[in-house]
Amino acid sequence: MLEDTVGLGAVTVLGVLEQAYFSLQVIYARRKYSVPPPSTTGPPEFERVFRAQANCSEYFPIFITIMWTCGVFFSQGLSSVCGLLYLYGRFRYFQGYSASAQGRLAPLYFSAKVLWVLIAFSSLGVFLSFCRVYLNVDLLQRLGSALDLA
Amino acid sequence: MLEDTVGLGAVTVLGVLEQAYFSLQVIYARRKYSVPPPSTTGPPEFERVFRAQANCSEYFPIFITIMWTCGVFFSQGLSSVCGLLYLYGRFRYFQGYSASAQGRLAPLYFSAKVLWVLIAFSSLGVFLSFCRVYLNVDLLQRLGSALDLA
Amino acid sequence: MLEDTVGLGAVTVLGVLEQAYFSLQVIYARRKYSVPPPSTTGPPEFERVFRAQANCSEYFPIFITIMWTCGVFFSQGLSSVCGLLYLYGRFRYFQGYSASAQGRLAPLYFSAKVLWVLIAFSSLGVFLSFCRVYLNVDLLQRLGSALDLA
Repeated sequence: MLEDTVGLGAVTVLGVLEQAYFSLQVIYARRKYSVPPPSTTGPPEFERVFRAQANCSEYFPIFITIMWTCGVFFSQGLSSVCGLLYLYGRFRYFQGYSASAQGRLAPLYFSAKVLWVLIAFSSLGVFLSFCRVYLNVDLLQRLGSALDLA
Repeated sequence: MLEDTVGLGAVTVLGVLEQAYFSLQVIYARRKYSVPPPSTTGPPEFERVFRAQANCSEYFPIFITIMWTCGVFFSQGLSSVCGLLYLYGRFRYFQGYSASAQGRLAPLYFSAKVLWVLIAFSSLGVFLSFCRVYLNVDLLQRLGSALDLA
Repeated sequence: MLEDTVGLGAVTVLGVLEQAYFSLQVIYARRKYSVPPPSTTGPPEFERVFRAQANCSEYFPIFITIMWTCGVFFSQGLSSVCGLLYLYGRFRYFQGYSASAQGRLAPLYFSAKVLWVLIAFSSLGVFLSFCRVYLNVDLLQRLGSALDLA
């Protein structure tokens, strides 16, 4: 069991550390631009950092959910690599958004693409598991046999 | 293992796709009502779409957490059906809220009820597992025996 | 399997109930201070309750993720106890923030410390599992042997 998930666990811990880093940046930005809680509005420099962190936080559970679904139902290796790419994209997004609203776009599209890859392989993995469990059909094996015959 | 969770995995992928759909609606609303990021205020039409998506995102991790807890500790079938009902309720909520603040209420109450069902059966499932693991008492089996004797 | 996670399941259900309680407090505050949705601004009393709930919701998936990672890869007992402490800290934070912006600080620092403990032991657990699975080295056992020899 653990050997099928330890890579996912490692990326998960990294992801939590990244979220902690983003949260600390908001605290620093609150001090720098004098925006005490509960206020969430202030100079654009503060609002960009705040929104960058809010956006990353909003996507964090979606990312963790789909990475584990892909890892458990399809492939831990592929899923962990996508997870690392996503976290890298989110880091670039946070840096870019902190600098300018425009700067968030390229890494945002990159992160979104990685999520779509995880969604696609999760869907495939769940579908193949569904066929195996409920229809007793192993599509991957059938595909392999068909290719062997050809 | 996979056969006990493939239904939960399928509902999970559906849930992530629904969140992706909501996120896209916010992007379209930003363009339509000319509200560039990082701003989150604008005409009420935009704010309703924004808040609808924010509310669904906020509840997404709670939903995923409790659906899996209910599915693992109580019943995958019941949990998956509740999951589908919740996602349907959230879709109606998003449509209703986009149209009017009033329109969000009925589907919101429906989604909340489904969450309470998941919480109730999660609690029951965890309690029964607790009795089985730590007290070595299988309450369901005892109940069955008692009914047989009666 | 279930016996390794039933404690985590119990804390998870408690955590979801706590989030439900926070959400209800926001609904009551909206009525009390006449702040109908989709608006999220109003008197400071309302904004503090709103931000308290938003902050707890934002951290909920991070908490659940790291508690389960720590529980699965390191120790269910330690992780469940930390989970209870975190939920208690968050309850004090919500009460404190509802009363004053200053009142949120002490329980916020406490919750953050509990999260760091969970992150530290998750990292350790994932690292030890990694060594065991991929390097075939059981560091804990080696440490035990070294201590026996000494």
